[in-house]
Amino acid sequence: MKNETITAPKGFLAAGVACGIKASGKADIALLSCPSGATSGAVFTTNKVVSAAVHVCRDHLASRTTYGVIANSGNANACTGKKGLTNAKKMCTAAARELEAEPDQVLVASTGIIGEQLPIQKASAGIAQAAPQLADTPEAGLAFAEAIMTTDTKPKQAVRKLWISGEETTIAGAVKGAGMIGPNMATTLLFITTDAAIGKPLLTSALAEAVGNSLNKLTVDGHQSTNDTAIILASGLASKHLITGPCPRYRKFTESLADLCGDLARQMALDAEGATRMFKVVVTGAATRSEAGKAARAVADYPLVKCAVHGGDPNWGRIICAVGSCGVELKPEKLSCKLDDLTVFKKGTPARFDTAQASAIVSQTEHTITVDLGVGQASDFCYGCDLTAEYVHINADYHT
Amino acid sequence: MKNETITAPKGFLAAGVACGIKASGKADIALLSCPSGATSGAVFTTNKVVSAAVHVCRDHLASRTTYGVIANSGNANACTGKKGLTNAKKMCTAAARELEAEPDQVLVASTGIIGEQLPIQKASAGIAQAAPQLADTPEAGLAFAEAIMTTDTKPKQAVRKLWISGEETTIAGAVKGAGMIGPNMATTLLFITTDAAIGKPLLTSALAEAVGNSLNKLTVDGHQSTNDTAIILASGLASKHLITGPCPRYRKFTESLADLCGDLARQMALDAEGATRMFKVVVTGAATRSEAGKAARAVADYPLVKCAVHGGDPNWGRIICAVGSCGVELKPEKLSCKLDDLTVFKKGTPARFDTAQASAIVSQTEHTITVDLGVGQASDFCYGCDLTAEYVHINADYHT
Repeated sequence: MKNETITAPKGFLAAGVACGIKASGKADIALLSCPSGATSGAVFTTNKVVSAAVHVCRDHLASRTTYGVIANSGNANACTGKKGLTNAKKMCTAAARELEAEPDQVLVASTGIIGEQLPIQKASAGIAQAAPQLADTPEAGLAFAEAIMTTDTKPKQAVRKLWISGEETTIAGAVKGAGMIGPNMATTLLFITTDAAIGKPLLTSALAEAVGNSLNKLTVDGHQSTNDTAIILASGLASKHLITGPCPRYRKFTESLADLCGDLARQMALDAEGATRMFKVVVTGAATRSEAGKAARAVADYPLVKCAVHGGDPNWGRIICAVGSCGVELKPEKLSCKLDDLTVFKKGTPARFDTAQASAIVSQTEHTITVDLGVGQASDFCYGCDLTAEYVHINADYHT
Repeated sequence: MKNETITAPKGFLAAGVACGIKASGKADIALLSCPSGATSGAVFTTNKVVSAAVHVCRDHLASRTTYGVIANSGNANACTGKKGLTNAKKMCTAAARELEAEPDQVLVASTGIIGEQLPIQKASAGIAQAAPQLADTPEAGLAFAEAIMTTDTKPKQAVRKLWISGEETTIAGAVKGAGMIGPNMATTLLFITTDAAIGKPLLTSALAEAVGNSLNKLTVDGHQSTNDTAIILASGLASKHLITGPCPRYRKFTESLADLCGDLARQMALDAEGATRMFKVVVTGAATRSEAGKAARAVADYPLVKCAVHGGDPNWGRIICAVGSCGVELKPEKLSCKLDDLTVFKKGTPARFDTAQASAIVSQTEHTITVDLGVGQASDFCYGCDLTAEYVHINADYHT
């Protein structure tokens, strides 16, 4: 069996078990180990209210070497005050004991319901149960990917192989998504492993760049969770030649990492809560890239556009409405819109088009909406998904 | 029968007819007449893409006297280029002919699908059909309120009586709402009539103030339409003493107008597309009123909060998540949240509360969410409604 999981790069073991945090009895503890020690990097939510895990994880990133990551699903350990902070540290201590490391050499992440105290005894027991199961097999990697899921319907994983100076290097990732997803950063939890040999500052900047052009371009419901965390661990076992500067090897690594993150972002969009379709919004002719991104996000977040996509309805008026109300500079008399390659609105006037063709475009699993603001040369994009009755059912019934 | 419609103030006649713009055959032409001539004021959408009707209406507001308003539903006449502009003017010309006025003495408004040309021949025939039916009866007022409806399930009207210097004065309003509603301004079309005698600049400022504290505080899906228009006509027939300055009579009039708009805003929230409940978000302890308003709106717009309210679920973690990600200044360790009078989160720590009681609060037709940011003294509020599967059905199936 080909290994397409986070245990694919050299030097990583994983495990996933159920310890009872989730009432459903599904897996809720995910443990990742790098016995040789890894260089680590991470990016976090920009929400001003962050989980206890994010607080602790930020501190532990200061360690020169990281030996593992402990994550739980079913409880976000956010808005839980001092007790929550103590519990996040206890998770690291429990994992560190199993991995024969110091607590600050373990990173931590949580996802699930906000505002309830983490059942720390269950979590600690789960960590003790997971450790003996650590393995570098595809099964172990899959168990890890499943243990971080909340309302996800399937595990989301990707692997990339690349050659750096003649040495085969592997990058792998596992992500959970589904809801509470808005750019900066569009994921709840993302874990990436690689056997690339790369220095810490470069590893962090490569991750930030890759996430910025992929996961941060995805919006499901326009909001960031309190827990969003992307962690990368590099074991360095693929090569003896450390990447230490922004050389061609670094560029190659970053491109491959970005490609992997793009793959995971698309998987997240298609597995977003209740989603049946995804779409890409490209905004061109903007005054600045920031304005183009803002307009693209406004379209992707607009409930009426999301509903129209769900209905396979080429209701482009709602797209223009979203662009017009988001505050970016535009020229109404130059404004144009395309669905894939079909022009539906040109320079402020409705275009003649075949509505059956337009409906067929919008009814695809993926299509692209392009809006030209008619002002400048800048462009940017955003991924979105449809809004369905199922999204409402999932989120009206989640807690009770 | 007591007249609770826009024909209640002295000097106004109304009519509503079906002319075939709507495929359903429901009423789609609304005509309002003030034979003695009225002082007029209006506020419009701040969307950068505005309907042809908004362009024409802005121009016609320059007239010293207004003799009527012509409105249609079923077609927004927005994103329709030069032809759309010509059609909006033709609507005014047709109505002016019937009302024996000049075209620029008639105001115009449209609501419905964006991006399709208005069937102007049908609209003109409808205007000719409506004119002979103009009457000052409650039935005629109701016909007007029904003819501006789109996905509204019921007409929304309100009347206020007040005494100004011993003279009975009446203010009445009809509004259509339902979807594409975000503050600034939270209505698609609002028409207000009054027999108050008040100068033009004061009438406009009274309207802007009243709308700012009511309709602009309502969000259904966080977006402004291209057509949002609020028009007020004052016949002056209640009094010979014109209100010309910001005197106590002006304050009394403005307060009553604001009260009427607040009533209409609540009716809109409860009749929002698919909505079954509404809620008010009050944000206190903010650095500025603007930040408090931004945070209140972020909570009211957050799909996960709207879904939780639909499920009668006191999932306050989503409220905190929305506040944290909207960019306002806050102190996580001082952040608190209440559902009505029940404290669920206090100074950064979950409070102990009876979840059955909390569920009962959230399951009411209306409840209040209060969030204290722990920073300053400023506060503001916003109205929202729940997000339901019905909203998705309405908006996925609207066009096709």
